[in-house]
Amino acid sequence: MKKIGLAGFGTIGRRVANAIDKQQDMKVVGVSKTTPDMTANIAEEQYGLYGVSNKNAESLDSAGLNTEGTLEDLTEQSDIIVDTSPSGHGEENKSIYEEKGTKAVFQGGEDSNVADQSYNSYVALDKNTDYTECDYLRVVSCNTTGISRLASSIESGIQWIQATLIRRAADPNEDSKGPINDTVRSSNVPSHHAEDVKELYPNLDIHTMAVKVPVTSMHMHSIDVKLEQPEQFDVGKLKNRNRINFIPEQYDETGGQLSELATTSHRSSDSIFENTIWGNTFQKDNGRIRLFQGVHQRGVTVPETIDAIRAINGEPVQESVRQTDENLGITNSRHR
Amino acid sequence: MKKIGLAGFGTIGRRVANAIDKQQDMKVVGVSKTTPDMTANIAEEQYGLYGVSNKNAESLDSAGLNTEGTLEDLTEQSDIIVDTSPSGHGEENKSIYEEKGTKAVFQGGEDSNVADQSYNSYVALDKNTDYTECDYLRVVSCNTTGISRLASSIESGIQWIQATLIRRAADPNEDSKGPINDTVRSSNVPSHHAEDVKELYPNLDIHTMAVKVPVTSMHMHSIDVKLEQPEQFDVGKLKNRNRINFIPEQYDETGGQLSELATTSHRSSDSIFENTIWGNTFQKDNGRIRLFQGVHQRGVTVPETIDAIRAINGEPVQESVRQTDENLGITNSRHR
Amino acid sequence: MKKIGLAGFGTIGRRVANAIDKQQDMKVVGVSKTTPDMTANIAEEQYGLYGVSNKNAESLDSAGLNTEGTLEDLTEQSDIIVDTSPSGHGEENKSIYEEKGTKAVFQGGEDSNVADQSYNSYVALDKNTDYTECDYLRVVSCNTTGISRLASSIESGIQWIQATLIRRAADPNEDSKGPINDTVRSSNVPSHHAEDVKELYPNLDIHTMAVKVPVTSMHMHSIDVKLEQPEQFDVGKLKNRNRINFIPEQYDETGGQLSELATTSHRSSDSIFENTIWGNTFQKDNGRIRLFQGVHQRGVTVPETIDAIRAINGEPVQESVRQTDENLGITNSRHR
Amino acid sequence: MKKIGLAGFGTIGRRVANAIDKQQDMKVVGVSKTTPDMTANIAEEQYGLYGVSNKNAESLDSAGLNTEGTLEDLTEQSDIIVDTSPSGHGEENKSIYEEKGTKAVFQGGEDSNVADQSYNSYVALDKNTDYTECDYLRVVSCNTTGISRLASSIESGIQWIQATLIRRAADPNEDSKGPINDTVRSSNVPSHHAEDVKELYPNLDIHTMAVKVPVTSMHMHSIDVKLEQPEQFDVGKLKNRNRINFIPEQYDETGGQLSELATTSHRSSDSIFENTIWGNTFQKDNGRIRLFQGVHQRGVTVPETIDAIRAINGEPVQESVRQTDENLGITNSRHR
Repeated sequence: MKKIGLAGFGTIGRRVANAIDKQQDMKVVGVSKTTPDMTANIAEEQYGLYGVSNKNAESLDSAGLNTEGTLEDLTEQSDIIVDTSPSGHGEENKSIYEEKGTKAVFQGGEDSNVADQSYNSYVALDKNTDYTECDYLRVVSCNTTGISRLASSIESGIQWIQATLIRRAADPNEDSKGPINDTVRSSNVPSHHAEDVKELYPNLDIHTMAVKVPVTSMHMHSIDVKLEQPEQFDVGKLKNRNRINFIPEQYDETGGQLSELATTSHRSSDSIFENTIWGNTFQKDNGRIRLFQGVHQRGVTVPETIDAIRAINGEPVQESVRQTDENLGITNSRHR
Repeated sequence: MKKIGLAGFGTIGRRVANAIDKQQDMKVVGVSKTTPDMTANIAEEQYGLYGVSNKNAESLDSAGLNTEGTLEDLTEQSDIIVDTSPSGHGEENKSIYEEKGTKAVFQGGEDSNVADQSYNSYVALDKNTDYTECDYLRVVSCNTTGISRLASSIESGIQWIQATLIRRAADPNEDSKGPINDTVRSSNVPSHHAEDVKELYPNLDIHTMAVKVPVTSMHMHSIDVKLEQPEQFDVGKLKNRNRINFIPEQYDETGGQLSELATTSHRSSDSIFENTIWGNTFQKDNGRIRLFQGVHQRGVTVPETIDAIRAINGEPVQESVRQTDENLGITNSRHR
Repeated sequence: MKKIGLAGFGTIGRRVANAIDKQQDMKVVGVSKTTPDMTANIAEEQYGLYGVSNKNAESLDSAGLNTEGTLEDLTEQSDIIVDTSPSGHGEENKSIYEEKGTKAVFQGGEDSNVADQSYNSYVALDKNTDYTECDYLRVVSCNTTGISRLASSIESGIQWIQATLIRRAADPNEDSKGPINDTVRSSNVPSHHAEDVKELYPNLDIHTMAVKVPVTSMHMHSIDVKLEQPEQFDVGKLKNRNRINFIPEQYDETGGQLSELATTSHRSSDSIFENTIWGNTFQKDNGRIRLFQGVHQRGVTVPETIDAIRAINGEPVQESVRQTDENLGITNSRHR
Repeated sequence: MKKIGLAGFGTIGRRVANAIDKQQDMKVVGVSKTTPDMTANIAEEQYGLYGVSNKNAESLDSAGLNTEGTLEDLTEQSDIIVDTSPSGHGEENKSIYEEKGTKAVFQGGEDSNVADQSYNSYVALDKNTDYTECDYLRVVSCNTTGISRLASSIESGIQWIQATLIRRAADPNEDSKGPINDTVRSSNVPSHHAEDVKELYPNLDIHTMAVKVPVTSMHMHSIDVKLEQPEQFDVGKLKNRNRINFIPEQYDETGGQLSELATTSHRSSDSIFENTIWGNTFQKDNGRIRLFQGVHQRGVTVPETIDAIRAINGEPVQESVRQTDENLGITNSRHR
């Protein structure tokens, strides 16, 4: 039973905790936070609460919570840390993990050089990578995860990928971020996402452009792929991937509708762990593949994080993916 | 074990089904729908699918689903029908229930005269109402439920209530409804909600004004109450009600944040079954009570619908409320 | 010809400049800004550009703009300063105006004690106030202006006012402010708006509650007034006020639609200078008046600012209001 | 002086009327509408009001407006009709224009076969088209206008164009359209826009994908062009086009901010008649051009409509474009 310490308990942290609860080989032994709020309450009740620093612990205690120490203490009693702190704070926390000699899994908000390697399960499977020697892994961001899963599922060769990322501008619990009524382009073309994909596929010719829109539900990717060997392309691989939900053509549900369905389904969460590819937008024509895919920013990196825990522990990826999918109900048999 | 037929499987229907799944004394024996879509798929898989009409059944079957008959057939094998069809369709379906002599629970989208009585659990408790003779009950709408729970919890007498309802304009799965960037007032003052509350409290002096805003998360009520005996008012009753979540002053989470917390909590749903009263907005001054309360349109009527099933079956309300609250995890001990 | 220096050139500053352009007795002699952007370009082209500080002027110049000095220089050549800087910066700039002995008009974002008096034209008319001795006036905020105009138009006496302010959360050019999908209550009840109205009406019994919604178009007020002498109330005064647009009952246009109409009308601006009262929401009942009024945050304080310039210059309010209304096309004869 | 009858007075109709007011060689002689509302009021006051049908005229009259007849009457006294009715109604009205032998300009919401030719001014200039023989022209839609202007400005040859259209889901005055919190893809890939561009460029290899987002301000295009002769590409042509606003790299204003600036500028309207290309997103690399362009749905087709009036009247396009640009203040000298 791997003992997991969780640094951060936000949108991703809480979902990772829920996902760990559903595994047989790991458990959350504590959660570190900086400030008292309702999530601190939940963390204390369900897992045990720690301040990141001594000062944080004091502030949590004075708010009536009972902390069990600091992130340092939590690290000491954990086999592995999963750091889901806000972007940049993982980097700051890393010295604690180093000092204690504890391995850690970071999220895509951190700079890639925080870790020995960036991680995605399908890419790891493709390349048959061994992470035994790694101390630190970084699960790539939701957008990069979405693109990497897609790229790994096109086996007939990719000449280039052009992607327009229509990003949800805030998560449902971020009430101060905008825009309210504007489409805001990233002023850098290409956007930084292309570079992040190259952490996994250094030789891939990929170009990305990004905008933010006033939506909290999920990201939408407009994808254009030039195939190297179009005649050998097999859509079956896309359809058979567990972590790609290739929606049959007759269904026209939106991202918001799918998220609502997830919420009320037996999966019991709003998380969509899979890429969503709408079959009725899939088109193969003149050596090009075009499609729209939805990337649920709160869901897609969760199974990858579970796998990364096992990978950094030296366990084989293939069996990990099988377990994670089974435990989280990720299956490609949803639709006939 | 009461056999429940469910007419309609939308935002409310699916949540009622989930809630019935958690009770020991009732189960869903089938769901009727009109058109094929992903929810039809889920209904078929989990409960058994019926077309509302023969024509609907055919259309569902031709889309590759397997229906087990029509709403008429479903009614025949159900002890009680819960009708969560879109507004007005319950009225249309009622002749089927009458013909089969089957009792039914309707939702607040229906006109009040569809049923023998309108229903809210706290009001029923207050008035010690017996529903044994009723064939048809109507659970009042989410906004009315929210106001009625509040009114029932003020025992020092209400001279009048003035409420401004800031309504979420659409549910998360309704992608065609607006507005996108406008605050749209109801052109009727008072809005129809005041009349609906009077179905439960005929003598209450209540006046409501309503606007729609581009939000899908939850309704917000700005409440102003003139008390009859201010010195006897006890905020403890509000705080002790299970179905009112009186948030301690130190917490400042928004409705969106609370819904996100519900999603990732062990309750395993985005539904907030309780009224949310923000303690830091509660004010008692000069014989008036002012507060903001959040009313989760997808959650608040769910426990009332479970109770209405038992009420129409002649079971006592008090025990029903206790069971429902226990089964759905509704408790007032969340916060210290 | 009064020479007006304009500190700040944002949403309000640009509209005040446009409004001054339409007066015969004043002109803008320069605009001060802090940072280079497109508005700086427009300011330079139309009025002459100044940095607030020397450092700002340098930064503007290095961006290729030609500044004509600093706010100090601008103040020197101005008869009166209108300071529309972001909240709090007016206070900071004030020492410059004091040093130069130049009178200034501030906006409602500043603390009330920045000025000798807070200002609203109808209140000034009612009270027959003389501002000759004032060096600094502060035009109250858009929400306060909206409420004060209303209060000043009810002559039968007000026992109390209860207002729920449903605020637009950002202006159209503010792309980083949220919320995107949430209704965020102010955690203070009453909200600060009530206190601000009391700057003008110290003895008024007014209570306000406020929420923010994801809308950029305009504020909406849900108003409940208890009259002292209901039988003497005359709706004619509301209907005859120039700065109150009492929309006839047969029209049902929303705030967004009215703003769009303003944009394409001969007024040639999206600004709605008047309170908008929807006639079909107006109700007088049991000594209470209820109504919805729209308050265009970009428009309502503009005519008041023009009047405040004249008031601080010792000119009579009544004639000022007449001129401003005529020059800006504010008239109550729009509707039959 | 060409006498123009205007069928429809919505978002586009009112802006076309304003633009005609600024020309020396044409004037609006009347406006036809179906229903009484505030725009009918404005139409009556400024131009003279007609019902589309007799029944419409009666309904307008009973609402207290004074109509001067029907669309038939208006057609009779017009030299040319500009039909800006909602999609599909232009087709219905056409029989009236045919019967009276009156030429007409339609908008892009109509099917292309409503007219003899589809129209865009830069394409007309490129091809040196003569419209003397045409009775009916159709100004292509805002999105098509935006793409066509761009294509016409790339003279080094286009191998193909791939465009993702991130569409504003509603105009500011459409309060019932959604989505509120969702990104809704068009289920057809390619979207219909590619076909519409081919009405103007039959041999262009263009592919479009479209989503709707909860924004009312403007459309955003993510553009990817493969050049035929990259070495000959000259960005100067893009920068010198009047109807393309190529924003210098140092400016980072969003579409919403530009629209707000237009509103308060001396242009006196919120309309942005030009394509907006953000210089800091423009990239030329490996024979590809990528950029983001904003397309103001309320503005871009307005100057084209003015030109189409002259074109159908047999006047040369080049001189028309010059006049229209001068009269509407469309110039490429805004930025240094």
